[in-house]
Amino acid sequence: MFKLIKKSPKTKARLGRFSTDHGEIQTPVFMPVGTQATVKAVKRDQLKDQIGAEIILGNTYHLYLRPGMEVIRGVGGLHKFMSWDRPILTDSGGYQIFSLSDIRKLEEEGARFKSHLDGSEHLFTPENVVEIQRILGSDVMMILDECPPYPCDHQYVEESMNLTHRWAKRGRDAFRQTEPLYGHRQAQFGIVQGGTYKDLREISSRQMNELGFEGLAIGGLSVGEPAELMYEITDFNTDLLPKDKPRYLMGVGTPANLLQCIAFGIDMFDCVMPTRNARNGMIFTRNGTVNIRNAKWKEHHKPLDPDFPSELSRDYPFSYIHHLFRSDEILGLILASIHNLTFYHWLIRKVRQKIEDETFADWYPGMMATLEKRV
Amino acid sequence: MFKLIKKSPKTKARLGRFSTDHGEIQTPVFMPVGTQATVKAVKRDQLKDQIGAEIILGNTYHLYLRPGMEVIRGVGGLHKFMSWDRPILTDSGGYQIFSLSDIRKLEEEGARFKSHLDGSEHLFTPENVVEIQRILGSDVMMILDECPPYPCDHQYVEESMNLTHRWAKRGRDAFRQTEPLYGHRQAQFGIVQGGTYKDLREISSRQMNELGFEGLAIGGLSVGEPAELMYEITDFNTDLLPKDKPRYLMGVGTPANLLQCIAFGIDMFDCVMPTRNARNGMIFTRNGTVNIRNAKWKEHHKPLDPDFPSELSRDYPFSYIHHLFRSDEILGLILASIHNLTFYHWLIRKVRQKIEDETFADWYPGMMATLEKRV
Repeated sequence: MFKLIKKSPKTKARLGRFSTDHGEIQTPVFMPVGTQATVKAVKRDQLKDQIGAEIILGNTYHLYLRPGMEVIRGVGGLHKFMSWDRPILTDSGGYQIFSLSDIRKLEEEGARFKSHLDGSEHLFTPENVVEIQRILGSDVMMILDECPPYPCDHQYVEESMNLTHRWAKRGRDAFRQTEPLYGHRQAQFGIVQGGTYKDLREISSRQMNELGFEGLAIGGLSVGEPAELMYEITDFNTDLLPKDKPRYLMGVGTPANLLQCIAFGIDMFDCVMPTRNARNGMIFTRNGTVNIRNAKWKEHHKPLDPDFPSELSRDYPFSYIHHLFRSDEILGLILASIHNLTFYHWLIRKVRQKIEDETFADWYPGMMATLEKRV
Repeated sequence: MFKLIKKSPKTKARLGRFSTDHGEIQTPVFMPVGTQATVKAVKRDQLKDQIGAEIILGNTYHLYLRPGMEVIRGVGGLHKFMSWDRPILTDSGGYQIFSLSDIRKLEEEGARFKSHLDGSEHLFTPENVVEIQRILGSDVMMILDECPPYPCDHQYVEESMNLTHRWAKRGRDAFRQTEPLYGHRQAQFGIVQGGTYKDLREISSRQMNELGFEGLAIGGLSVGEPAELMYEITDFNTDLLPKDKPRYLMGVGTPANLLQCIAFGIDMFDCVMPTRNARNGMIFTRNGTVNIRNAKWKEHHKPLDPDFPSELSRDYPFSYIHHLFRSDEILGLILASIHNLTFYHWLIRKVRQKIEDETFADWYPGMMATLEKRV
């Protein structure tokens, strides 16, 4: 399903294509997060036509709890439920069990948790998260894993990783023994763990690779470690992954993070940052990050960046956007969410062009520095 | 500025055109409320292209307090601030002083109030609300009035009405003695008061008419009185108004209210109901009102009304819309707000066609009955 198209001469950056029955994805790609079957505050037509999203992510944990699998199966899968006809990747729910649910117990069998919504008890196993993602009908499903926090000692990370490996084998078996429900293909990605320990990353990469997944994710990063360490481990880890499979760095990150990790050979990203930060009034621009709420914008009556193709930056006096945020108006969240996602996708398309032109290596360090500025 | 085009043969319904320097409005017309310089949760392009809004309303009270007149004057008026190039009507702030601000004192001079935002003290006078609306640059400004509650005794309403009349005279003088700031024409509407007392409505209509306003509003209704009484007074009051001026019924109402009051000869309406109810999960349809949150929609996997031109009713399984509301997702508010406003404008366009065809009188009672149903 994945085809490597081109490699950047002086970095590990790559251009690729990942085909699904809902269309082909160009890589590198950024996947907006649609937690509860919606990318927050953004309409479908805006995602497709304005932002140019090629694939979005859905959260198994959330969708399993609400609306629940009966509703999703009844309607014929997540694509039909949310009326989204492009590819969808779903996570396995593992991450949310550890970050959201009130009580959980890790067993060999799986992860036991209480719903953060109503306290009801549930068990996710390597097998039933495959079954759930069959019902969701995502184009790419993820295996159940445990994602240890940072910092975490070597022994805990090793034992956790070994559990993830045993779960990965069971999950891959379950995937091979079951069929898609709605007539379109589904892929399954493994998740490399090992925290910030390189010896464990080597073991985990090898073991995940042996299971024949259609793609491999780097998990367990962006959980609180310094950016430099995240970079070091990502750089190290991509060398351990096969060239002919897509590489997905889970939960990363800022626009600068994307550029650096693309240079390390990452193909796929997801992150709540563009939408979550947008709702907090923080937007990403070609000149750095902007805090909309800052008093200095109160009488800034020019558009923020009249040449950038988003309504927020081009079509309104920036004083108006400031006013919307100061007045807690929903329109502010909407315009900022669309803007940030438009910016991420603009950046990714620029990256692709730079790799295509073989100018990526010279361009990205300067761009990273600009993106990290505060305007 | 107003031209009466046609009268319905068996009702008092009328077709008209009201011209402004930001374009011509067809009447009857519904004006979406853009309280704080935004129609809540709806983008400009959606208002224009999807909903077909011809004019929107802004609230002087809110805009005066935030962002404040310095910002609005600096940017060159409300149209530029919110990047809206179609007509805008602004109220005078009188209604909000009585409904929102913490403390107020009514004096001959004007209405003294404390900001609901920060407790700061302010005075609105008949003259300075003209000045403020000159700065806002609305196409239609309203006079300062007092809007008594319901129920209210005859003496109070009479005294209040007389104060409104004295204010109206001062407001009209201020309007005549000042000029627009931004080169486009502004009109000023008077407001007929008198509560539910017909003798007072007669006096108020006559006095307002004598001041030569470009249009006349019926104020003081939709403040808690039964719908039948609102209908009775509206029906009575329109007979007292000149035929060659637009008639604006302030703060009304449901889709059925609109039909009935159009039959009584009203040309213009505004109401927060389509957007406020949308945010509460109540939507208006051709078959009656729908409570999105109702459990009966949980597994309703068909679109609600596939032939109605709104995304909410046409493009998604209705179970999805239900899910968005149950999950408190912003997208639900967005789709419902767009839907309700689309519905109001669809209804008004249908009304215009029926008046044009001379079938309005036969059509509207049945349509009213349908609109009042619960689906």
